[in-house]
Amino acid sequence: MDFRKISNVTVECVIFSLENAELKILLSQRELQINTSGNTKLNDWIVTGDFIYKTETLQQAASRILKYNIEYNQVHQEQFDTFGDPNRIWKEKDIVWLKKLDAGTRLVSVGYISLLAADMFKNKKSSSQWFSIKELPELGFDHTEILKSAHEYLQKKILMEPLIFELLPNKFTLNELQIAFEAILDIQLDNRNFRKKVLRKKYIVLLDEKRTGFSKKPANLYIFSKDIYNKIVEKNQLFIF
Amino acid sequence: MDFRKISNVTVECVIFSLENAELKILLSQRELQINTSGNTKLNDWIVTGDFIYKTETLQQAASRILKYNIEYNQVHQEQFDTFGDPNRIWKEKDIVWLKKLDAGTRLVSVGYISLLAADMFKNKKSSSQWFSIKELPELGFDHTEILKSAHEYLQKKILMEPLIFELLPNKFTLNELQIAFEAILDIQLDNRNFRKKVLRKKYIVLLDEKRTGFSKKPANLYIFSKDIYNKIVEKNQLFIF
Repeated sequence: MDFRKISNVTVECVIFSLENAELKILLSQRELQINTSGNTKLNDWIVTGDFIYKTETLQQAASRILKYNIEYNQVHQEQFDTFGDPNRIWKEKDIVWLKKLDAGTRLVSVGYISLLAADMFKNKKSSSQWFSIKELPELGFDHTEILKSAHEYLQKKILMEPLIFELLPNKFTLNELQIAFEAILDIQLDNRNFRKKVLRKKYIVLLDEKRTGFSKKPANLYIFSKDIYNKIVEKNQLFIF
Repeated sequence: MDFRKISNVTVECVIFSLENAELKILLSQRELQINTSGNTKLNDWIVTGDFIYKTETLQQAASRILKYNIEYNQVHQEQFDTFGDPNRIWKEKDIVWLKKLDAGTRLVSVGYISLLAADMFKNKKSSSQWFSIKELPELGFDHTEILKSAHEYLQKKILMEPLIFELLPNKFTLNELQIAFEAILDIQLDNRNFRKKVLRKKYIVLLDEKRTGFSKKPANLYIFSKDIYNKIVEKNQLFIF
């Protein structure tokens, strides 16, 4: 593997997870103190990313970046958009930062979303931190826009494909599923209607098992069946829209 | 506008249209004769693309590439994938070609699909030609894979979003709609079932107008109503999948 970096192409991983009924994003701290030229000081947050290596694919870069930050059992990554606006980078602190990295400001960034199932991972780096999508800090570069675009992509995608199950534990309660939809879409759902709709879906399968928590009555557990889902899609192929 | 090109980033436009019940793709001829070093001769086809300019967005590059080839009234372009495998370019003729262009072989290519509505465009360049997706010539670079990926993206997308109407004239017959689905998905549809399914869709609106062709009986004309579609999507938001 040739570890030299391509200085104008990065992969940016928008890493999502669900925790306590909130959609969360893992961000990396960016810190830089320049003493010689006076007061330029950098201490903010960025989407987790890196330049690509000469001899790796984009997908390999996305996977490397994730592995560097997280220890996980279950993950789904997919490309969602590529950013190439020539005016993406114009703030002085971003220019200073890139100069330090020996990179120019005409960067093309390939965006990936990573979906981490709740309770299936551990942070590896102390300079990374989870933030609620509703309480984001100031971000470097155009990462606020990249993040917004990733969130919109996720919102759209979970209505059309069973992507939401990537964010849930393998066995989940209907309440957890509802909370996941509500957190990602930022809406309130009517409980009874939601359950009625969900129970009509043959690919959401009731298990002979319950989750018991203290102070709550035991809740039914379900799994998502990829097999059943694929059969239904095949049969109804035309006009899902 | 700074017209200098970025030598390792291209935009590739997979340009689709429908003609005579076939899904077609516009390809560009690649021709190169090197006399000094003997017999290296290049004469094949590639997806229409170019390096991006220093001062344009990816979308602007995609639009420029299309405009250079086609005169059109109605077009839909969207990014579908970005290709960055380090082993994309290995054939000798591709390396020769890139050398001539002063570019290296570690290229990142952003793929766009362009959907041209039937009868709404005119070719501008004689070195471009339409090919049926079923009868493709030998393609340079990894463009056979790029094209395959674009086709699969389109097949998946037309089942989930009303993208197919971008390839049809504004007013269309049900027969034309069926042929479009069949051409893109490469399947045969049962005529009666198809019509029944379509007529249930409120966003496919019957016009008080018929198309008359000689030797056929006049056929009802329809339009796709974006307004009605958007209202239905809003109402049924959850679980389209």
